[in-house]
Amino acid sequence: MINPVEFKSIVDRYKVIFFDSFGVIKNYKGLVPGMKNTFDYLEENQKEYYIVTNDASRSPQQLAESFVKLGLDMITADKIISSGMLAKEYLELKVPDGIVAYMGTDDSAHYIESAGLRTLPVKAIDDSNINEVNALVFMDDEGFNWFRDLNKVVNLLRKRNIPAIVANTDFAYPLNMHDVAIAVGALANMIEHVVGKKFIHFGKPDSQMFMFAYDLVRAKGPISKKDILMVGDTLHTDILGGNKFGLDTVLVFSGNTQPEDAETSITSTGIVPTYICETAVVCGK
Amino acid sequence: MINPVEFKSIVDRYKVIFFDSFGVIKNYKGLVPGMKNTFDYLEENQKEYYIVTNDASRSPQQLAESFVKLGLDMITADKIISSGMLAKEYLELKVPDGIVAYMGTDDSAHYIESAGLRTLPVKAIDDSNINEVNALVFMDDEGFNWFRDLNKVVNLLRKRNIPAIVANTDFAYPLNMHDVAIAVGALANMIEHVVGKKFIHFGKPDSQMFMFAYDLVRAKGPISKKDILMVGDTLHTDILGGNKFGLDTVLVFSGNTQPEDAETSITSTGIVPTYICETAVVCGK
Amino acid sequence: MINPVEFKSIVDRYKVIFFDSFGVIKNYKGLVPGMKNTFDYLEENQKEYYIVTNDASRSPQQLAESFVKLGLDMITADKIISSGMLAKEYLELKVPDGIVAYMGTDDSAHYIESAGLRTLPVKAIDDSNINEVNALVFMDDEGFNWFRDLNKVVNLLRKRNIPAIVANTDFAYPLNMHDVAIAVGALANMIEHVVGKKFIHFGKPDSQMFMFAYDLVRAKGPISKKDILMVGDTLHTDILGGNKFGLDTVLVFSGNTQPEDAETSITSTGIVPTYICETAVVCGK
Amino acid sequence: MINPVEFKSIVDRYKVIFFDSFGVIKNYKGLVPGMKNTFDYLEENQKEYYIVTNDASRSPQQLAESFVKLGLDMITADKIISSGMLAKEYLELKVPDGIVAYMGTDDSAHYIESAGLRTLPVKAIDDSNINEVNALVFMDDEGFNWFRDLNKVVNLLRKRNIPAIVANTDFAYPLNMHDVAIAVGALANMIEHVVGKKFIHFGKPDSQMFMFAYDLVRAKGPISKKDILMVGDTLHTDILGGNKFGLDTVLVFSGNTQPEDAETSITSTGIVPTYICETAVVCGK
Repeated sequence: MINPVEFKSIVDRYKVIFFDSFGVIKNYKGLVPGMKNTFDYLEENQKEYYIVTNDASRSPQQLAESFVKLGLDMITADKIISSGMLAKEYLELKVPDGIVAYMGTDDSAHYIESAGLRTLPVKAIDDSNINEVNALVFMDDEGFNWFRDLNKVVNLLRKRNIPAIVANTDFAYPLNMHDVAIAVGALANMIEHVVGKKFIHFGKPDSQMFMFAYDLVRAKGPISKKDILMVGDTLHTDILGGNKFGLDTVLVFSGNTQPEDAETSITSTGIVPTYICETAVVCGK
Repeated sequence: MINPVEFKSIVDRYKVIFFDSFGVIKNYKGLVPGMKNTFDYLEENQKEYYIVTNDASRSPQQLAESFVKLGLDMITADKIISSGMLAKEYLELKVPDGIVAYMGTDDSAHYIESAGLRTLPVKAIDDSNINEVNALVFMDDEGFNWFRDLNKVVNLLRKRNIPAIVANTDFAYPLNMHDVAIAVGALANMIEHVVGKKFIHFGKPDSQMFMFAYDLVRAKGPISKKDILMVGDTLHTDILGGNKFGLDTVLVFSGNTQPEDAETSITSTGIVPTYICETAVVCGK
Repeated sequence: MINPVEFKSIVDRYKVIFFDSFGVIKNYKGLVPGMKNTFDYLEENQKEYYIVTNDASRSPQQLAESFVKLGLDMITADKIISSGMLAKEYLELKVPDGIVAYMGTDDSAHYIESAGLRTLPVKAIDDSNINEVNALVFMDDEGFNWFRDLNKVVNLLRKRNIPAIVANTDFAYPLNMHDVAIAVGALANMIEHVVGKKFIHFGKPDSQMFMFAYDLVRAKGPISKKDILMVGDTLHTDILGGNKFGLDTVLVFSGNTQPEDAETSITSTGIVPTYICETAVVCGK
Repeated sequence: MINPVEFKSIVDRYKVIFFDSFGVIKNYKGLVPGMKNTFDYLEENQKEYYIVTNDASRSPQQLAESFVKLGLDMITADKIISSGMLAKEYLELKVPDGIVAYMGTDDSAHYIESAGLRTLPVKAIDDSNINEVNALVFMDDEGFNWFRDLNKVVNLLRKRNIPAIVANTDFAYPLNMHDVAIAVGALANMIEHVVGKKFIHFGKPDSQMFMFAYDLVRAKGPISKKDILMVGDTLHTDILGGNKFGLDTVLVFSGNTQPEDAETSITSTGIVPTYICETAVVCGK
């Protein structure tokens, strides 16, 4: 059986900590109890930290505000690395002009607008503008009519050979203790199979997420990957991605992975975290 | 280059003909011109024929009526073999009681009702009846709210370990000359990946479709598979499935496959029809 | 927790029993203790039985002899249904002439020879005969040099657009208590991905295996699928395939599935056997 | 139809050029005619260049020497970025001690040795050392007995829950004008499916390859991704990977992609290069 260790004893060995958001810092009930301690401790000990999240539904500003509302005042927009930021970087580099069509809420469209591009929700594509559409981005599972717009997207991609960017690779996310919701990554994968084209996927476990975070860290001074710790609740995204990028990893039990299933999951997937902790909470003083 | 041959010269060599429906007999414009001749010829020459279709949206009666409306009076319900009939057989054999939840129109639910089971559209599942739901069937892409009911289905399958049956394996179907629509097979595949469970899929190229048709033919007297010809417009369903079942196959150009792409498609997929014809039309006298 | 039931109490309700071979009747140590009782009981009670196995390495005669050597004198070649027999039927129906190249031992080539076709081990293909090769069959993982012949097969399939038949869909098989071996199904899948063509796969869980067995049963008189029981040790082949074909199924713990993992496996895969028994042994009198 | 443009007109717009090796600089016949001109031109114009290759069979030194032998004296080891170097970095970061088992030639093992780790060919694993094996690396398709060692690797990974690293994601490589060979990426994928565990794959199109090269470029001074051009012959590796990383890309016809198939391939895959050139040759003066 697996013996979890104290998170504090681990965090002390690293200079920079990457945290997954959902299932580590917060869950459907709100803040994971005690996480305020963790961020206080990191601040006091001048450790750098980033929140690395497969979330393109809201801007880094909005994501940071959601943490502040939970009592984590120290979390500012510059601490957030979201898969939406990679989509934005792609668009800046590879889509010089024209319209970027999107699936998602108006909030999620801000990533595209911040790249200086004109945005258009898929529902507004028509014969008058379809030839100006130069990219399609899957941002969020909400904000559109699934039946109408998923069908519309299939036909858009059959008519225009444009890049399709998936800004969140997750297949599902938890709604409450009992229910999950289909995430935009699953919708995008379905469309990818229907049209038979290769989409551009951004999000953990893909290393481009970790590279983006690593570049921010390095901008502040030289650092080795050995000094960075990735903390996550999901073997297939946080731990697999962190391991592949060369980081040490901690699996916590405050989200997707249950203590009683951990050993079986680790053995059957071959995805082995460096450490296992109950939670990412730094306890007591 | 491929030289198509006359359909009549081929059909004369077989006793029984299996036809795909969409892309062979009819398309989005209506009847494929000349197909009335083909069925007249089959009747005159006392050849048996069946329409083998990945369609669970309507009953065999309704499907037959749709052919009669196009002028093919000879096509009766007993000539139709649909993937919905396999779903029905599965339910009869494997689901003794309780409720069968379905995704699809009311028309598609008739298959389940004809198996003597109580049906419930997914939208009507609630705490009062979820424990009586003993199977879920994906029948059709219409008749439900995609956002609400696809999410509901994911949570149903997480709470109840019941069989999920997919009554149409297609990923898309043509709407008109320019557009396609996402078929229920693609929706079901997405859900299968989200929940990580194995669904039961019925439809070409799976051999169970051909077996069902073959059993009907054999019920009328002994026949060899060598005397049966499968006619289809799609390499991955009609031709692959027909070949695997041991039938000779004809690829026609009245649907999914274009003459100019045929050679490339056949070479790159390795799916080789026994014959190639422009259409399944028996010409002139 | 799952409570296994007595196999005898179940077998009494059915007229025909299909058994998987490895993991049910025998394992790497020899006969599963007590299985002689089971077959004596079936004979005494005039129940029909068949052994339905993903094995194309030896002929039905040789497979039957291997059971006789273990003390099961009643098992004759006509009781054996192997995936090799489906490959043979395919070749008889679809490959009228020419050479059939094969990967496997000389024993496995007997299936092809019994279809009246000329066989050639892949190693013997050269410029003088490559144009006569009209099909390729993957029979067994032994009997050839993997490096030389797997590479040779890739190039054969790039030069000749011929059907590739996989006569055993298994990915691995047990060698002894500690070790497994890669089965020919895994080798064939690798080649299928390398060349990008669709192969024809025969073996459980595909329904064509069950149909072949069902046809033999029906040849002796009318029978409903409700009177047939499939007994297997593997959820993904025996149970999934039996369920899909409409048969009742028993999962036994004498092979691939361990009692302590059964509930987790059934829940996570959604593959639910009708019954669970410790073994397929009919005990006592 | 696609109109290729002159490579020189494109190369002039970028500061750094990444080249794929096989199919761009050389092929089975030797140097692509004229490529000496290209590298002379890059040197004269002080453009930086790197060779980014899915090859772990030889060290950067050996790879560089192979270019020198073809007359490209300017190509030194520091110009080579191979997927083997990523495997080496992974081992340095994540495998602190013990033995690293490998599949490949002795040459390929040098990558592991250069990480300061003890290496062991898979054939030499036995009961005395298996518990010290802390990682497995797939380096090359040559240098081992496929039947013996692929089976051995399956059982190693069932007994020891260690990371399996794939240092070359390719499925096949060309041997001569007519034949290809199975690459180690295909063998590793087969084993991954047989054992059901997640392997760590390094090589194009994965962005970690491009990041490694980009880090080398940035070490010499600040540069934007907009100033880097990726040149390749394969849509699914060079072009897809380059695009995703945010680079402009050139597809050339000196390797995997034929001019007559380019348009169809680009349309059907949705992988669109920024430019298309006949070859990467800078002509004339």
